[in-house]
Amino acid sequence: MEGMVRKTLLIILCLFISSSLTSSHPKPAKPCKRITLYYHDTMFKGNNVQNASAAAITNSTGLGSFKFGETVVFDDPMTEDGDLASPAMARAQGFYFYNMKNTYNAWFAYSLVFNSSQYKGTINVMGADIMDVDRRDLSVVGGTGDFFMARGIVTFISDVVEGADYFRLKMDVKLFECY
Amino acid sequence: MEGMVRKTLLIILCLFISSSLTSSHPKPAKPCKRITLYYHDTMFKGNNVQNASAAAITNSTGLGSFKFGETVVFDDPMTEDGDLASPAMARAQGFYFYNMKNTYNAWFAYSLVFNSSQYKGTINVMGADIMDVDRRDLSVVGGTGDFFMARGIVTFISDVVEGADYFRLKMDVKLFECY
Amino acid sequence: MEGMVRKTLLIILCLFISSSLTSSHPKPAKPCKRITLYYHDTMFKGNNVQNASAAAITNSTGLGSFKFGETVVFDDPMTEDGDLASPAMARAQGFYFYNMKNTYNAWFAYSLVFNSSQYKGTINVMGADIMDVDRRDLSVVGGTGDFFMARGIVTFISDVVEGADYFRLKMDVKLFECY
Repeated sequence: MEGMVRKTLLIILCLFISSSLTSSHPKPAKPCKRITLYYHDTMFKGNNVQNASAAAITNSTGLGSFKFGETVVFDDPMTEDGDLASPAMARAQGFYFYNMKNTYNAWFAYSLVFNSSQYKGTINVMGADIMDVDRRDLSVVGGTGDFFMARGIVTFISDVVEGADYFRLKMDVKLFECY
Repeated sequence: MEGMVRKTLLIILCLFISSSLTSSHPKPAKPCKRITLYYHDTMFKGNNVQNASAAAITNSTGLGSFKFGETVVFDDPMTEDGDLASPAMARAQGFYFYNMKNTYNAWFAYSLVFNSSQYKGTINVMGADIMDVDRRDLSVVGGTGDFFMARGIVTFISDVVEGADYFRLKMDVKLFECY
Repeated sequence: MEGMVRKTLLIILCLFISSSLTSSHPKPAKPCKRITLYYHDTMFKGNNVQNASAAAITNSTGLGSFKFGETVVFDDPMTEDGDLASPAMARAQGFYFYNMKNTYNAWFAYSLVFNSSQYKGTINVMGADIMDVDRRDLSVVGGTGDFFMARGIVTFISDVVEGADYFRLKMDVKLFECY
Protein backbone atom coordinates (compact mmCIF):
# COMPACT_ATOMS: atom_id res chain seq x y z
CA MET A 1 0.00 0.00 0.00
CA GLU A 2 2.68 2.49 1.01
CA GLY A 3 4.51 2.05 -2.30
CA MET A 4 1.36 2.51 -4.32
CA VAL A 5 0.46 5.75 -2.58
CA ARG A 6 3.95 7.12 -3.14
CA LYS A 7 3.80 6.12 -6.79
CA THR A 8 0.43 7.84 -7.26
CA LEU A 9 1.68 10.98 -5.55
CA LEU A 10 4.68 10.98 -7.87
CA ILE A 11 2.46 10.61 -10.93
CA ILE A 12 0.29 13.52 -9.86
CA LEU A 13 3.33 15.70 -9.23
CA CYS A 14 4.74 14.89 -12.67
CA LEU A 15 1.40 15.54 -14.35
CA PHE A 16 1.15 18.83 -12.54
CA ILE A 17 4.64 20.00 -13.41
CA SER A 18 4.40 18.95 -17.04
CA SER A 19 1.06 20.73 -17.41
CA SER A 20 2.60 23.93 -16.04
CA LEU A 21 5.43 23.82 -18.54
CA THR A 22 3.77 22.69 -21.74
CA SER A 23 2.14 25.21 -24.01
CA SER A 24 0.04 22.71 -25.97
CA HIS A 25 -3.51 22.41 -24.72
CA PRO A 26 -6.40 20.19 -25.77
CA LYS A 27 -8.87 22.09 -27.96
CA PRO A 28 -11.84 23.07 -25.76
CA ALA A 29 -14.93 21.03 -26.55
CA LYS A 30 -17.31 23.97 -26.46
CA PRO A 31 -17.33 27.73 -25.86
CA CYS A 32 -17.65 29.14 -22.34
CA LYS A 33 -19.84 31.84 -23.92
CA ARG A 34 -21.58 32.21 -27.26
CA ILE A 35 -23.34 35.25 -28.74
CA THR A 36 -24.77 35.38 -32.25
CA LEU A 37 -25.58 38.75 -33.75
CA TYR A 38 -26.17 40.36 -37.15
CA TYR A 39 -23.93 43.16 -38.36
CA HIS A 40 -25.52 45.83 -40.59
CA ASP A 41 -23.20 48.02 -42.65
CA THR A 42 -24.92 51.00 -44.27
CA MET A 43 -22.51 53.15 -46.30
CA PHE A 44 -22.56 56.93 -46.22
CA LYS A 45 -23.33 58.26 -49.70
CA GLY A 46 -23.11 61.98 -48.98
CA ASN A 47 -26.83 62.58 -48.43
CA ASN A 48 -27.88 59.85 -45.98
CA VAL A 49 -26.43 60.99 -42.64
CA GLN A 50 -29.60 59.84 -40.86
CA ASN A 51 -29.32 56.16 -41.69
CA ALA A 52 -25.64 55.69 -42.60
CA SER A 53 -23.37 54.03 -40.02
CA ALA A 54 -20.19 53.56 -42.09
CA ALA A 55 -18.10 55.69 -44.43
CA ALA A 56 -15.21 55.11 -46.83
CA ILE A 57 -12.11 56.99 -45.70
CA THR A 58 -9.89 56.08 -48.68
CA ASN A 59 -10.57 55.46 -52.34
CA SER A 60 -9.79 52.15 -53.96
CA THR A 61 -6.36 52.12 -55.57
CA GLY A 62 -6.93 50.73 -59.05
CA LEU A 63 -5.05 47.53 -58.27
CA GLY A 64 -7.63 45.24 -59.89
CA SER A 65 -11.39 45.77 -60.00
CA PHE A 66 -12.41 44.72 -56.50
CA LYS A 67 -11.91 47.92 -54.49
CA PHE A 68 -8.37 47.02 -53.40
CA GLY A 69 -7.42 49.46 -50.65
CA GLU A 70 -10.84 51.01 -50.07
CA THR A 71 -11.09 51.44 -46.30
CA VAL A 72 -14.32 51.84 -44.35
CA VAL A 73 -14.76 53.10 -40.78
CA PHE A 74 -17.97 51.91 -39.14
CA ASP A 75 -20.13 52.27 -36.05
CA ASP A 76 -22.64 49.61 -37.03
CA PRO A 77 -25.63 48.25 -35.13
CA MET A 78 -25.65 44.58 -34.12
CA THR A 79 -29.10 42.99 -33.88
CA GLU A 80 -30.32 39.63 -32.65
CA ASP A 81 -32.22 38.89 -35.83
CA GLY A 82 -31.54 39.91 -39.40
CA ASP A 83 -33.79 42.97 -39.28
CA LEU A 84 -31.96 46.30 -39.44
CA ALA A 85 -34.93 47.88 -37.63
CA SER A 86 -34.55 45.61 -34.58
CA PRO A 87 -33.04 47.10 -31.41
CA ALA A 88 -29.23 47.12 -31.41
CA MET A 89 -27.81 44.70 -28.81
CA ALA A 90 -24.32 46.12 -29.39
CA ARG A 91 -22.36 48.40 -31.69
CA ALA A 92 -19.53 47.20 -33.88
CA GLN A 93 -16.90 49.98 -33.99
CA GLY A 94 -13.86 49.61 -36.19
CA PHE A 95 -12.76 49.39 -39.79
CA TYR A 96 -12.24 47.09 -42.74
CA PHE A 97 -10.52 47.36 -46.08
CA TYR A 98 -10.70 45.39 -49.32
CA ASN A 99 -7.41 43.68 -50.11
CA MET A 100 -7.47 41.42 -53.16
CA LYS A 101 -7.03 42.27 -56.82
CA ASN A 102 -8.94 39.33 -58.30
CA THR A 103 -11.96 38.95 -55.97
CA TYR A 104 -13.73 40.71 -53.09
CA ASN A 105 -11.88 40.02 -49.87
CA ALA A 106 -11.51 42.08 -46.71
CA TRP A 107 -9.65 42.48 -43.43
CA PHE A 108 -11.39 43.61 -40.23
CA ALA A 109 -10.42 45.00 -36.84
CA TYR A 110 -13.16 46.20 -34.49
CA SER A 111 -14.71 46.22 -31.05
CA LEU A 112 -18.14 44.89 -30.17
CA VAL A 113 -19.37 47.46 -27.65
CA PHE A 114 -22.09 46.25 -25.27
CA ASN A 115 -23.93 48.64 -22.97
CA SER A 116 -27.21 46.95 -22.06
CA SER A 117 -28.81 45.42 -19.00
CA GLN A 118 -27.52 42.05 -20.20
CA TYR A 119 -23.88 42.91 -20.96
CA LYS A 120 -21.46 45.77 -20.34
CA GLY A 121 -18.04 45.64 -21.91
CA THR A 122 -16.24 45.10 -25.19
CA ILE A 123 -15.02 42.20 -27.32
CA ASN A 124 -12.03 43.00 -29.54
CA VAL A 125 -11.72 41.22 -32.88
CA MET A 126 -9.30 41.12 -35.80
CA GLY A 127 -8.66 38.91 -38.80
CA ALA A 128 -9.14 38.05 -42.43
CA ASP A 129 -12.62 38.08 -43.94
CA ILE A 130 -12.13 35.55 -46.75
CA MET A 131 -15.35 36.49 -48.52
CA ASP A 132 -15.26 33.61 -51.03
CA VAL A 133 -15.69 31.13 -48.16
CA ASP A 134 -19.16 30.58 -46.65
CA ARG A 135 -17.94 30.54 -43.07
CA ARG A 136 -14.65 32.16 -42.08
CA ASP A 137 -13.10 32.70 -38.69
CA LEU A 138 -11.53 35.79 -37.17
CA SER A 139 -9.88 36.03 -33.75
CA VAL A 140 -11.25 37.43 -30.52
CA VAL A 141 -8.00 38.89 -29.18
CA GLY A 142 -9.25 40.41 -25.94
CA GLY A 143 -12.15 41.81 -24.02
CA THR A 144 -13.13 44.15 -21.21
CA GLY A 145 -15.91 44.46 -18.62
CA ASP A 146 -18.15 41.37 -18.72
CA PHE A 147 -15.76 39.97 -21.34
CA PHE A 148 -12.59 40.61 -19.32
CA MET A 149 -9.58 39.01 -21.05
CA ALA A 150 -11.79 36.96 -23.38
CA ARG A 151 -10.30 34.95 -26.24
CA GLY A 152 -11.96 32.97 -28.99
CA ILE A 153 -13.29 32.98 -32.52
CA VAL A 154 -15.85 35.00 -34.48
CA THR A 155 -17.33 33.16 -37.44
CA PHE A 156 -18.55 35.44 -40.26
CA ILE A 157 -21.41 34.09 -42.37
CA SER A 158 -22.40 36.10 -45.45
CA ASP A 159 -26.03 37.04 -45.39
CA VAL A 160 -26.61 39.97 -47.71
CA VAL A 161 -23.76 40.43 -50.16
CA GLU A 162 -20.71 42.51 -49.26
CA GLY A 163 -19.27 45.07 -51.64
CA ALA A 164 -22.51 47.03 -51.90
CA ASP A 165 -23.97 50.10 -50.18
CA TYR A 166 -25.59 47.90 -47.57
CA PHE A 167 -24.55 44.47 -46.46
CA ARG A 168 -25.26 42.17 -43.57
CA LEU A 169 -23.10 39.55 -41.90
CA LYS A 170 -24.01 37.00 -39.29
CA MET A 171 -21.33 37.05 -36.60
CA ASP A 172 -21.14 34.00 -34.36
CA VAL A 173 -18.96 34.93 -31.36
CA LYS A 174 -17.55 31.93 -29.50
CA LEU A 175 -15.39 32.62 -26.45
CA PHE A 176 -13.11 29.80 -25.30
CA GLU A 177 -11.42 31.72 -22.53
CA CYS A 178 -13.65 33.44 -19.99
CA TYR A 179 -12.96 34.97 -16.60
CA MET B 1 -6.87 5.59 6.64
CA GLU B 2 -6.17 3.82 3.34
CA GLY B 3 -9.61 4.69 2.01
CA MET B 4 -9.26 8.33 2.95
CA VAL B 5 -5.92 8.65 1.20
CA ARG B 6 -7.32 7.05 -1.96
CA LYS B 7 -10.31 9.36 -1.86
CA THR B 8 -8.09 12.43 -1.48
CA LEU B 9 -5.90 11.30 -4.36
CA LEU B 10 -8.99 10.85 -6.49
CA ILE B 11 -10.26 14.33 -5.62
CA ILE B 12 -6.92 15.88 -6.56
CA LEU B 13 -6.84 13.99 -9.85
CA CYS B 14 -10.37 15.14 -10.70
CA LEU B 15 -9.60 18.74 -9.76
CA PHE B 16 -6.50 18.60 -11.88
CA ILE B 17 -8.21 17.14 -14.94
CA SER B 18 -11.20 19.46 -14.73
CA SER B 19 -8.92 22.49 -14.44
CA SER B 20 -7.08 21.42 -17.58
CA LEU B 21 -10.30 21.16 -19.57
CA THR B 22 -12.30 24.13 -18.41
CA SER B 23 -11.84 27.48 -20.07
CA SER B 24 -13.49 29.54 -17.34
CA HIS B 25 -11.04 31.04 -14.91
CA PRO B 26 -11.51 33.12 -11.77
CA LYS B 27 -10.85 36.82 -12.44
CA PRO B 28 -7.34 37.60 -11.13
CA ALA B 29 -7.44 39.67 -7.96
CA LYS B 30 -4.69 42.05 -9.03
CA PRO B 31 -2.33 42.70 -11.95
CA CYS B 32 1.02 40.93 -12.15
CA LYS B 33 2.38 44.21 -13.50
CA ARG B 34 1.07 47.77 -13.59
CA ILE B 35 2.45 50.82 -15.41
CA THR B 36 0.76 54.22 -15.48
CA LEU B 37 1.84 56.72 -18.12
CA TYR B 38 0.58 59.86 -19.84
CA TYR B 39 0.06 59.92 -23.60
CA HIS B 40 0.66 63.26 -25.38
CA ASP B 41 -0.80 63.66 -28.86
CA THR B 42 0.44 66.76 -30.70
CA MET B 43 -1.05 67.09 -34.18
CA PHE B 44 0.98 68.10 -37.22
CA LYS B 45 -0.41 71.35 -38.63
CA GLY B 46 1.91 71.76 -41.59
CA ASN B 47 4.44 74.05 -39.97
CA ASN B 48 5.27 72.37 -36.64
CA VAL B 49 7.50 69.42 -37.63
CA GLN B 50 9.71 70.07 -34.58
CA ASN B 51 7.10 69.42 -31.93
CA ALA B 52 4.39 67.40 -33.75
CA SER B 53 4.24 63.65 -33.08
CA ALA B 54 0.99 62.76 -34.88
CA ALA B 55 -0.59 63.51 -38.23
CA ALA B 56 -3.99 63.02 -39.85
CA ILE B 57 -3.77 60.65 -42.81
CA THR B 58 -7.41 60.92 -43.92
CA ASN B 59 -9.97 63.70 -43.83
CA SER B 60 -13.20 63.35 -41.93
CA THR B 61 -16.03 62.08 -44.09
CA GLY B 62 -18.90 64.46 -43.43
CA LEU B 63 -20.93 61.77 -41.67
CA GLY B 64 -21.98 63.99 -38.76
CA SER B 65 -19.94 66.76 -37.18
CA PHE B 66 -17.51 64.79 -35.03
CA LYS B 67 -14.68 63.97 -37.46
CA PHE B 68 -16.14 60.57 -38.39
CA GLY B 69 -13.42 58.75 -40.31
CA GLU B 70 -10.52 61.12 -39.58
CA THR B 71 -7.55 58.84 -38.99
CA VAL B 72 -4.39 59.83 -37.15
CA VAL B 73 -1.00 58.06 -37.15
CA PHE B 74 1.10 58.79 -34.10
CA ASP B 75 4.52 58.28 -32.54
CA ASP B 76 3.69 59.90 -29.25
CA PRO B 77 5.80 60.29 -26.11
CA MET B 78 4.62 58.60 -22.89
CA THR B 79 5.66 60.35 -19.67
CA GLU B 80 5.38 59.41 -16.01
CA ASP B 81 3.71 62.65 -15.07
CA GLY B 82 1.40 64.89 -17.05
CA ASP B 83 4.16 67.21 -18.26
CA LEU B 84 4.88 66.96 -21.99
CA ALA B 85 8.42 68.20 -21.27
CA SER B 86 9.20 65.26 -18.97
CA PRO B 87 11.45 62.49 -20.32
CA ALA B 88 9.60 59.89 -22.41
CA MET B 89 9.49 56.49 -20.66
CA ALA B 90 8.09 54.90 -23.83
CA ARG B 91 6.69 55.78 -27.24
CA ALA B 92 3.14 54.99 -28.29
CA GLN B 93 3.20 54.04 -31.99
CA GLY B 94 -0.03 53.35 -33.82
CA PHE B 95 -3.21 54.99 -35.02
CA TYR B 96 -6.72 56.01 -34.07
CA PHE B 97 -9.76 57.18 -35.94
CA TYR B 98 -12.97 58.95 -34.93
CA ASN B 99 -16.02 56.79 -35.51
CA MET B 100 -19.30 58.26 -34.30
CA LYS B 101 -21.65 60.68 -36.01
CA ASN B 102 -23.28 62.19 -32.90
CA THR B 103 -20.34 62.55 -30.47
CA TYR B 104 -16.55 62.30 -30.32
CA ASN B 105 -15.54 58.66 -30.06
CA ALA B 106 -12.44 56.82 -31.27
CA TRP B 107 -10.84 53.45 -31.88
CA PHE B 108 -7.15 52.78 -31.16
CA ALA B 109 -4.54 50.19 -32.08
CA TYR B 110 -0.93 50.80 -31.06
CA SER B 111 2.25 49.53 -29.50
CA LEU B 112 3.88 50.90 -26.37
CA VAL B 113 7.59 50.74 -27.23
CA PHE B 114 9.97 50.64 -24.26
CA ASN B 115 13.71 51.01 -24.69
CA SER B 116 15.09 52.13 -21.35
CA SER B 117 17.25 50.74 -18.59
CA GLN B 118 14.03 49.75 -16.81
CA TYR B 119 12.14 48.01 -19.65
CA LYS B 120 12.87 46.74 -23.14
CA GLY B 121 10.03 45.44 -25.24
CA THR B 122 6.55 46.29 -26.49
CA ILE B 123 2.96 46.10 -25.26
CA ASN B 124 0.34 45.79 -28.01
CA VAL B 125 -3.07 47.35 -27.45
CA MET B 126 -6.36 47.66 -29.30
CA GLY B 127 -9.90 48.65 -28.51
CA ALA B 128 -12.68 51.21 -28.36
CA ASP B 129 -12.01 54.61 -26.81
CA ILE B 130 -15.53 55.50 -25.64
CA MET B 131 -14.71 59.12 -25.03
CA ASP B 132 -18.00 59.97 -23.29
CA VAL B 133 -17.07 57.65 -20.43
CA ASP B 134 -14.59 58.82 -17.76
CA ARG B 135 -12.69 55.55 -17.62
CA ARG B 136 -12.79 53.07 -20.50
CA ASP B 137 -10.87 49.88 -21.04
CA LEU B 138 -8.97 48.64 -24.08
CA SER B 139 -7.26 45.25 -24.43
CA VAL B 140 -3.58 44.39 -24.12
CA VAL B 141 -3.49 41.67 -26.78
CA GLY B 142 0.18 40.74 -26.63
CA GLY B 143 3.68 41.81 -25.78
CA THR B 144 7.33 41.21 -26.55
CA GLY B 145 10.67 41.44 -24.73
CA ASP B 146 10.12 42.17 -21.05
CA PHE B 147 6.39 41.94 -21.77
CA PHE B 148 6.57 38.58 -23.56
CA MET B 149 3.03 37.28 -24.27
CA ALA B 150 1.45 39.80 -21.91
CA ARG B 151 -2.33 40.17 -21.71
CA GLY B 152 -4.47 42.61 -19.79
CA ILE B 153 -6.30 45.91 -19.84
CA VAL B 154 -5.38 49.54 -20.52
CA THR B 155 -7.67 52.05 -18.86
CA PHE B 156 -7.90 55.42 -20.64
CA ILE B 157 -8.66 58.43 -18.46
CA SER B 158 -9.29 61.76 -20.22
CA ASP B 159 -7.00 64.43 -19.00
CA VAL B 160 -6.84 67.20 -21.57
CA VAL B 161 -9.72 67.06 -24.02
CA GLU B 162 -9.50 64.93 -27.14
CA GLY B 163 -10.56 66.27 -30.51
CA ALA B 164 -8.15 69.19 -30.41
CA ASP B 165 -4.64 69.87 -31.75
CA TYR B 166 -3.14 68.61 -28.52
CA PHE B 167 -4.65 66.19 -26.07
CA ARG B 168 -3.46 64.09 -23.20
CA LEU B 169 -4.69 60.76 -21.88
CA LYS B 170 -3.72 58.90 -18.74
CA MET B 171 -3.12 55.27 -19.66
CA ASP B 172 -3.20 52.79 -16.81
CA VAL B 173 -1.69 49.53 -18.09
CA LYS B 174 -2.62 46.46 -16.02
CA LEU B 175 -1.18 43.13 -17.08
CA PHE B 176 -2.95 40.01 -15.79
CA GLU B 177 -0.84 37.51 -17.66
CA CYS B 178 2.93 37.79 -17.30
CA TYR B 179 5.76 35.44 -18.20
CA MET C 1 4.07 7.38 7.25
CA GLU C 2 0.49 8.62 7.62
CA GLY C 3 1.70 12.12 8.48
CA MET C 4 4.04 12.25 5.51
CA VAL C 5 1.31 11.27 3.07
CA ARG C 6 -1.01 13.93 4.45
CA LYS C 7 1.76 16.51 4.24
CA THR C 8 2.49 15.62 0.62
CA LEU C 9 -1.19 15.77 -0.27
CA LEU C 10 -1.39 19.18 1.35
CA ILE C 11 1.63 20.41 -0.63
CA ILE C 12 0.11 19.23 -3.89
CA LEU C 13 -3.19 20.91 -3.11
CA CYS C 14 -1.45 24.18 -2.28
CA LEU C 15 0.67 24.02 -5.43
CA PHE C 16 -2.45 23.33 -7.44
CA ILE C 17 -4.49 26.16 -5.97
CA SER C 18 -1.68 28.69 -6.18
CA SER C 19 -1.06 27.78 -9.83
CA SER C 20 -4.74 28.35 -10.61
CA LEU C 21 -4.71 31.79 -9.09
CA THR C 22 -1.39 33.25 -10.13
CA SER C 23 -1.05 34.98 -13.47
CA SER C 24 2.74 34.82 -13.66
CA HIS C 25 4.02 31.90 -15.68
CA PRO C 26 7.53 30.66 -16.43
CA LYS C 27 8.61 31.68 -19.94
CA PRO C 28 8.22 28.62 -22.22
CA ALA C 29 11.56 27.10 -23.16
CA LYS C 30 10.67 26.61 -26.81
CA PRO C 31 7.78 27.16 -29.25
CA CYS C 32 5.08 24.52 -29.67
CA LYS C 33 5.16 25.43 -33.38
CA ARG C 34 7.59 27.35 -35.55
CA ILE C 35 7.20 28.49 -39.18
CA THR C 36 9.73 30.65 -41.03
CA LEU C 37 8.63 32.37 -44.22
CA TYR C 38 9.67 35.26 -46.46
CA TYR C 39 7.30 38.19 -47.04
CA HIS C 40 7.48 39.90 -50.45
CA ASP C 41 5.96 43.36 -50.75
CA THR C 42 5.65 44.62 -54.34
CA MET C 43 4.12 48.09 -54.53
CA PHE C 44 1.52 49.04 -57.12
CA LYS C 45 2.88 51.84 -59.32
CA GLY C 46 -0.17 52.39 -61.54
CA ASN C 47 0.95 50.18 -64.43
CA ASN C 48 1.99 46.91 -62.78
CA VAL C 49 -1.30 45.24 -61.82
CA GLN C 50 0.08 41.86 -62.89
CA ASN C 51 2.90 41.66 -60.36
CA ALA C 52 1.90 44.17 -57.66
CA SER C 53 0.51 42.80 -54.39
CA ALA C 54 0.39 45.99 -52.28
CA ALA C 55 -0.81 49.55 -52.76
CA ALA C 56 -0.53 52.82 -50.85
CA ILE C 57 -3.94 54.03 -49.69
CA THR C 58 -2.79 57.32 -48.17
CA ASN C 59 -0.05 59.79 -49.01
CA SER C 60 2.69 60.59 -46.57
CA THR C 61 1.91 63.65 -44.47
CA GLY C 62 5.03 65.81 -44.69
CA LEU C 63 5.86 65.25 -41.03
CA GLY C 64 9.57 64.61 -41.64
CA SER C 65 11.11 62.91 -44.67
CA PHE C 66 10.41 59.25 -43.91
CA LYS C 67 6.90 58.75 -45.31
CA PHE C 68 5.20 59.45 -41.96
CA GLY C 69 1.57 58.38 -42.37
CA GLU C 70 1.89 56.56 -45.70
CA THR C 71 -0.33 53.51 -45.34
CA VAL C 72 -0.08 50.37 -47.47
CA VAL C 73 -2.66 47.58 -47.87
CA PHE C 74 -1.17 44.27 -48.95
CA ASP C 75 -2.03 40.76 -50.05
CA ASP C 76 1.55 39.54 -50.22
CA PRO C 77 2.92 36.07 -50.99
CA MET C 78 4.88 34.23 -48.29
CA THR C 79 7.53 31.82 -49.58
CA GLU C 80 9.75 29.27 -47.89
CA ASP C 81 12.92 30.66 -49.41
CA GLY C 82 13.82 34.20 -50.39
CA ASP C 83 12.80 33.77 -54.04
CA LEU C 84 9.69 35.76 -55.03
CA ALA C 85 9.10 33.19 -57.81
CA SER C 86 8.80 30.29 -55.34
CA PRO C 87 5.33 28.90 -54.61
CA ALA C 88 3.43 30.86 -51.95
CA MET C 89 2.97 28.84 -48.76
CA ALA C 90 0.61 31.48 -47.38
CA ARG C 91 -0.65 35.01 -48.06
CA ALA C 92 -0.05 37.92 -45.71
CA GLN C 93 -3.18 40.12 -45.78
CA GLY C 94 -3.22 43.37 -43.86
CA PHE C 95 -1.66 46.80 -43.72
CA TYR C 96 1.25 48.82 -42.44
CA PHE C 97 2.05 52.49 -42.14
CA TYR C 98 5.23 54.49 -41.61
CA ASN C 99 5.21 56.35 -38.31
CA MET C 100 8.44 58.16 -37.48
CA LYS C 101 9.62 61.59 -38.54
CA ASN C 102 13.39 61.02 -38.21
CA THR C 103 13.85 57.46 -39.56
CA TYR C 104 11.95 54.71 -41.39
CA ASN C 105 9.78 52.85 -38.93
CA ALA C 106 6.47 51.05 -39.38
CA TRP C 107 3.50 49.45 -37.64
CA PHE C 108 1.86 46.25 -38.94
CA ALA C 109 -1.41 44.39 -38.47
CA TYR C 110 -2.16 41.41 -40.69
CA SER C 111 -3.27 37.82 -41.06
CA LEU C 112 -1.16 34.98 -42.38
CA VAL C 113 -3.68 32.99 -44.44
CA PHE C 114 -2.81 29.33 -45.02
CA ASN C 115 -4.78 27.18 -47.43
CA SER C 116 -2.52 24.27 -48.39
CA SER C 117 -2.36 20.54 -47.83
CA GLN C 118 -0.04 21.26 -44.91
CA TYR C 119 -1.99 23.99 -43.07
CA LYS C 120 -5.46 25.51 -43.19
CA GLY C 121 -6.20 28.53 -41.04
CA THR C 122 -4.94 31.96 -40.12
CA ILE C 123 -2.41 33.53 -37.75
CA ASN C 124 -3.21 37.09 -36.65
CA VAL C 125 -0.34 39.46 -35.97
CA MET C 126 0.13 43.04 -34.82
CA GLY C 127 2.94 45.20 -33.53
CA ALA C 128 5.72 47.68 -34.06
CA ASP C 129 8.24 47.12 -36.86
CA ILE C 130 11.24 48.97 -35.40
CA MET C 131 13.15 48.99 -38.67
CA ASP C 132 16.42 50.28 -37.20
CA VAL C 133 16.79 47.08 -35.20
CA ASP C 134 18.03 43.90 -36.92
CA ARG C 135 15.50 41.61 -35.27
CA ARG C 136 12.26 42.95 -33.84
CA ASP C 137 9.29 41.14 -32.39
CA LEU C 138 5.59 41.56 -33.08
CA SER C 139 2.75 39.69 -31.33
CA VAL C 140 0.72 36.74 -32.56
CA VAL C 141 -2.59 37.74 -30.97
CA GLY C 142 -4.77 34.89 -32.19
CA GLY C 143 -5.35 32.20 -34.76
CA THR C 144 -7.98 30.07 -36.43
CA GLY C 145 -8.23 26.63 -38.03
CA ASP C 146 -4.97 24.70 -37.53
CA PHE C 147 -3.78 27.68 -35.48
CA PHE C 148 -6.86 27.84 -33.24
CA MET C 149 -6.30 30.37 -30.42
CA ALA C 150 -2.56 30.54 -31.09
CA ARG C 151 -0.38 33.08 -29.29
CA GLY C 152 3.29 33.92 -29.69
CA ILE C 153 5.85 36.10 -31.39
CA VAL C 154 6.79 36.94 -34.99
CA THR C 155 10.37 38.07 -35.42
CA PHE C 156 10.96 40.36 -38.42
CA ILE C 157 14.43 40.23 -39.97
CA SER C 158 15.21 42.77 -42.70
CA ASP C 159 16.32 41.10 -45.88
CA VAL C 160 15.87 43.51 -48.77
CA VAL C 161 15.49 47.09 -47.62
CA GLU C 162 12.09 48.50 -46.71
CA GLY C 163 10.94 51.87 -47.96
CA ALA C 164 11.34 50.96 -51.61
CA ASP C 165 9.01 49.66 -54.35
CA TYR C 166 9.89 46.09 -53.41
CA PHE C 167 11.11 44.81 -50.09
CA ARG C 168 11.46 41.46 -48.42
CA LEU C 169 11.27 40.49 -44.76
CA LYS C 170 12.04 37.19 -43.11
CA MET C 171 9.24 36.39 -40.69
CA ASP C 172 10.00 33.83 -38.01
CA VAL C 173 6.69 32.76 -36.47
CA LYS C 174 7.01 31.16 -33.03
CA LEU C 175 3.84 29.98 -31.32
CA PHE C 176 4.02 29.46 -27.56
CA GLU C 177 0.37 28.60 -27.08
CA CYS C 178 -1.08 25.86 -29.28
CA TYR C 179 -4.31 23.88 -29.07
